[in-house]
Amino acid sequence: MQKIAILGIGQTKVDEHWDKSLKELGGEACFAAMQDANMNKVDALFVGNMLSPMINGQNQLGTFFSDWIGLWGHEAVKVEAACGSGAAALRAGLMGVASGEIESALVVGVEKMTDKAGHDVTAALATAADADYEVEQGVSFVGINALVMRRYMHEFGWQHADFAPFSINAHANAMHNPNARLHMEITTKQFENSNMVSTPINLLDASPIGDGAAAVIIVPAEKVDSIPGRPRIVLSGSAAATDTIAVHSRKDPLFLSAAYVSAKRAYDMAGVSPDNIDVFELHDAFSIMTALSLEASGFAERGQGPRLGLENEISPDGRVPVCTRGGLKARGHPVGATGMYQVVEVVQQLRGECGETQVDGAKIGMAQNIGGSGATVLTHILKAE
Amino acid sequence: MQKIAILGIGQTKVDEHWDKSLKELGGEACFAAMQDANMNKVDALFVGNMLSPMINGQNQLGTFFSDWIGLWGHEAVKVEAACGSGAAALRAGLMGVASGEIESALVVGVEKMTDKAGHDVTAALATAADADYEVEQGVSFVGINALVMRRYMHEFGWQHADFAPFSINAHANAMHNPNARLHMEITTKQFENSNMVSTPINLLDASPIGDGAAAVIIVPAEKVDSIPGRPRIVLSGSAAATDTIAVHSRKDPLFLSAAYVSAKRAYDMAGVSPDNIDVFELHDAFSIMTALSLEASGFAERGQGPRLGLENEISPDGRVPVCTRGGLKARGHPVGATGMYQVVEVVQQLRGECGETQVDGAKIGMAQNIGGSGATVLTHILKAE
Repeated sequence: MQKIAILGIGQTKVDEHWDKSLKELGGEACFAAMQDANMNKVDALFVGNMLSPMINGQNQLGTFFSDWIGLWGHEAVKVEAACGSGAAALRAGLMGVASGEIESALVVGVEKMTDKAGHDVTAALATAADADYEVEQGVSFVGINALVMRRYMHEFGWQHADFAPFSINAHANAMHNPNARLHMEITTKQFENSNMVSTPINLLDASPIGDGAAAVIIVPAEKVDSIPGRPRIVLSGSAAATDTIAVHSRKDPLFLSAAYVSAKRAYDMAGVSPDNIDVFELHDAFSIMTALSLEASGFAERGQGPRLGLENEISPDGRVPVCTRGGLKARGHPVGATGMYQVVEVVQQLRGECGETQVDGAKIGMAQNIGGSGATVLTHILKAE
Repeated sequence: MQKIAILGIGQTKVDEHWDKSLKELGGEACFAAMQDANMNKVDALFVGNMLSPMINGQNQLGTFFSDWIGLWGHEAVKVEAACGSGAAALRAGLMGVASGEIESALVVGVEKMTDKAGHDVTAALATAADADYEVEQGVSFVGINALVMRRYMHEFGWQHADFAPFSINAHANAMHNPNARLHMEITTKQFENSNMVSTPINLLDASPIGDGAAAVIIVPAEKVDSIPGRPRIVLSGSAAATDTIAVHSRKDPLFLSAAYVSAKRAYDMAGVSPDNIDVFELHDAFSIMTALSLEASGFAERGQGPRLGLENEISPDGRVPVCTRGGLKARGHPVGATGMYQVVEVVQQLRGECGETQVDGAKIGMAQNIGGSGATVLTHILKAE
């Protein structure tokens, strides 16, 4: 496949943006990416979004945003893969540019989900699960993850507190990210005493929802000279894989096979192994997902994910830095936008723009975005050249 | 771009499929396409759908269907562009295969929309319009089209009865399509006396909703030998273009500029002109859209679309055969599936499988799928080789 580069990045703060419409929120990230790339026009727009038909009463977000940002006439489309929508839009855009059909693409992940009451959002998020086999039984999305976490703890002998380092690391890193939703450090004691959501998942295991948008501009790498003072960032690995939607249908509910497959494909494509990854923005929607992602992606043995947190390997100066900008846990999880936040944050690391949480000498970064409870997984590997 | 061929096609009848789940409905078309192509595996799945989060409580339809049809592990994604979702999924799949990332793709458009009461569907369809500028004012989707039709009649001096031939042709052709929803011939008198929906659009100007799914399998053309007795069908033109979402924002609300742009790009790519198109499956969601599509795509002068119907140019033996399998009007309009029905029907024409409504010697066919009131338009040109 043709080599594709990321030229520009843009993002809004993850927050409750009650003063901004869906248009304004997504537009802000788009304009920021175009400004960062020093471009005022692109061929096509790919939008990742999960909830807008339900929460915002708006479909057809591709055209909705091409209209709003002044790309009249240009090709535009929305891509949806539940919470994996952001990275799914990136991969669709990447294939568009690589096919030669499109010369440049703006990819934006956007979600505005705090204007509705909690109940509506919980019901809307449940559409990521299997309507016939899971939701029909009355289980919520966090409920499904709670079942997985409880089984994992039982199977591998972990206590709830063993997951604390994941959330503590995410919150500590978010302190230095102005775009993060939560700016508060937490302790193991707070982690243990937090309000229960769905046993054993409590409030500090779970990522907060939020409104946000993040965008990148992609072009064929051969058409890009490095912008002075910046490395050229290339998408050297991209892969998508799926599993069953319903967790109970899986041969092994404690192994993210779609993460394994997509990570393996991305490693092969990029010609790297887990040892080469300097920074890993993973999909910590719940602390259990951090453990499972680390294991499926080759950073820990089966059932040993929590060890990386307990042995202090995951901080920006550790062996496997994760959630360096706060992750879903503390940067926040505006679902359809999350995959694009991860990619934007990896670009920031490879450019060396992360200040206090900068991973020294980061040259290769990975972003892994998950739709459903491991049902759709997209892995992207970025290299600074 | 690499040349892509359509190997297999599949479809369900458009109907009220209360006895089939969303899974079963889409799966039926997928399996039919795989059987038709004599393949039992493809690399990736692209799903076009508009309403499932709202009507069926299900998101992440890519993985939902890859799970159901046994493509575990394979890449899968959903693409949404309102009523243009079907063709948008085809174009995403086409770019995927053309990029070299994917060797074969199954593309399915699917919509199951009759299980909910009428009110919910009307509200769900309104998400194709601009939530802030149109729907907020209380206008429905048919209401927007009615405003356009009234203005068109005023501007160009047409009477309501002048649109009758469009619907009469569609219904007459559907009589010979076993997969069409409506099997009833209609007369000008019936057209004139039909129940009003939103003046001047009455029931026989408007396409019926329905449940349905249609699918194709696409592969690089170079890898395909003709199946004995069948021509090789190549996607020789593919283009997407957008306009403003809100009709009132357009410089000219009576011209489908996105149809014009996407048709022009598709003609250029295929190296053909309107004169070369043997069959044109257009997006007759409302009779006014037939007129506007014919004009924007170069088959009629501005304001003169109805003349093609009145002069009997649109029947299967006319100069510009349209809706040869019944069109949206009589085959039915399961919104996210419609674009794929159009493509499947063009393939049937190019294969010479259309019996009573076969266009003699059809070698080049065009399918045009529209999202919103002309906001997103995708045009595909297929050639029999």
